[in-house]
Amino acid sequence: MAGKNRQVVLASRPQGEPVPANFSIVETDMPSPRDGEILLKALYLSLDPYMRGRMSDARSYVPPFAVGEPLGGGTVSEVVTSNNSRFAPGDIVSAFGGWQQYSISDGAGLIKLDPRLAPLTTALGVLGMPGLTAYGGLLNIGDPKPGETLVVAAATGPVGSAVAQIGKIKGCRVVGIAGGEEKTRYLTGELGLDAAINHRPENMKAELKAACPNGIDIYFENVGGAVWDAVFPLLNNFARIPVCGLVANYNDTAPPQGPDKSTLLMRSILVKRLRLQGFIVTDFLKQTPEFIRDMATWLREGKMKYREDIVEGLEAAPEAFIGLLKGKNFGKLIVKV
Amino acid sequence: MAGKNRQVVLASRPQGEPVPANFSIVETDMPSPRDGEILLKALYLSLDPYMRGRMSDARSYVPPFAVGEPLGGGTVSEVVTSNNSRFAPGDIVSAFGGWQQYSISDGAGLIKLDPRLAPLTTALGVLGMPGLTAYGGLLNIGDPKPGETLVVAAATGPVGSAVAQIGKIKGCRVVGIAGGEEKTRYLTGELGLDAAINHRPENMKAELKAACPNGIDIYFENVGGAVWDAVFPLLNNFARIPVCGLVANYNDTAPPQGPDKSTLLMRSILVKRLRLQGFIVTDFLKQTPEFIRDMATWLREGKMKYREDIVEGLEAAPEAFIGLLKGKNFGKLIVKV
Repeated sequence: MAGKNRQVVLASRPQGEPVPANFSIVETDMPSPRDGEILLKALYLSLDPYMRGRMSDARSYVPPFAVGEPLGGGTVSEVVTSNNSRFAPGDIVSAFGGWQQYSISDGAGLIKLDPRLAPLTTALGVLGMPGLTAYGGLLNIGDPKPGETLVVAAATGPVGSAVAQIGKIKGCRVVGIAGGEEKTRYLTGELGLDAAINHRPENMKAELKAACPNGIDIYFENVGGAVWDAVFPLLNNFARIPVCGLVANYNDTAPPQGPDKSTLLMRSILVKRLRLQGFIVTDFLKQTPEFIRDMATWLREGKMKYREDIVEGLEAAPEAFIGLLKGKNFGKLIVKV
Repeated sequence: MAGKNRQVVLASRPQGEPVPANFSIVETDMPSPRDGEILLKALYLSLDPYMRGRMSDARSYVPPFAVGEPLGGGTVSEVVTSNNSRFAPGDIVSAFGGWQQYSISDGAGLIKLDPRLAPLTTALGVLGMPGLTAYGGLLNIGDPKPGETLVVAAATGPVGSAVAQIGKIKGCRVVGIAGGEEKTRYLTGELGLDAAINHRPENMKAELKAACPNGIDIYFENVGGAVWDAVFPLLNNFARIPVCGLVANYNDTAPPQGPDKSTLLMRSILVKRLRLQGFIVTDFLKQTPEFIRDMATWLREGKMKYREDIVEGLEAAPEAFIGLLKGKNFGKLIVKV
């Protein structure tokens, strides 16, 4: 098949906040599928905070993105040509096609999507990786019980909003934290949370304390930084902290200045018998069937809502991603390729 | 009953390391048991690191010791007179009689001991609170599996030595850390650990790394400080860290200087999916029957050994306690009252 393949490649590794010069848009030859392979055309590309980590070459749970190569990322893709008996042209699949128009797959990890069951973009959000992140982390580590107080940061994001709503379904008092009043109104209005805090004003600490009169039993950690500093003194004995992400620190180039708060953290873990536990979504892949069953039910019953922030065109991806780390999006950030 | 009661009272709260002037030895009138109460005479008093925390008035899981009052502590005591039908003169009990010769109890929490079953002092060590601390923390949070590497600090202490030996029983590679070569020889010789590290030399980090060729899966944290700094980079993915104590920090009067390592800690929790969880022994009181059953079996089979460091006379308690925080004792520190 003739034609060109447009890609966003990692031009250089970001130092601190990513800038447009870290990305470049290139055109390469259209790839050709070999025996057993299929050619995929990306319809939607997911932009997620974890990508910032993979742009650095620090040791992590997966290898970093390579400089000069297209960036990786989850996609909803259409099968164009197939040399694999399991897939036919026209099939729509959830894939890891990356920041490019066309990609090659051997079929491993692809999941066929039925456009009649749910909008295709939900495969990148509430029914996809962010949804499973929320479901697995909250239920396995957070262990929510009726009447407990759950605090969620980045609560309008795809992970945070699912965590918050699962918390409500499980009977918790749920307090969401988000940036800006439009977002906090959405949390208490549309999503029905018990309280919502804007993390931008100086008095965030006092507001959070007022919103959690019985302290905090579960804090779903996906931002770190000032929000964590506000949550920390409010944690109750036996609080659980699933550690899912630390967006506030992703652009750090050096450890923050002192004093060293790590001994205070350890002391609180001891005295309050806290449980802090990190996870990534792949730790819970085995729970995908229950996740899909529960989430589809909650969507159908109207207990689970979601919001998307869709930008047009692959060229817009770098700027949208830079904004994502600053909290500029409102809802799951998706590129319509 | 006439006579005097000798006591060690908290004269003032320590600032940093306790000094002899923080304690004073006083004589008061012998207390008299009222209806339902019994008069206890202490035979043995347990000295434990947690007592340092209760000498400060920082918020913790239990109220601090009061200035001017006798210090609290676990004892093996003999019933002298009894107005309680459950106890008779001559009975030997495990109690919380404190740093004094005589105390009054209403019977709550007392456990009768049978001197024919095990030496009385074991009720303060391997068959008492330190033993249950080791058993509950390691099995509930550490979750040891055959072939995994378990690292234990303060490994000749009553908690650490029990943790290390339970780890061997569960099939782990066990590396003990202790202060001085006499102690490390005891760990690899008498207790049969796979390796033992002296934490005093400068090259402790390199030695620990060499002793853990497959990294660390479980670190039973009871010291903090430099040992934690050496353990931290060696932790494997999915490592578990039961946080039981932080002796190295108990005398701190201010947070250590920067840089702030708490964000690095949180990042490692995330990336390596660590589980850090604090606990205190009372969280596991319900497991006392299994604990006694298993520990008694292991003692009988020779799989569980213990060592005691017994000092003579209540007057010796302050100096012995000050030495305990510096690692001067070798084995469970007990005062023969």
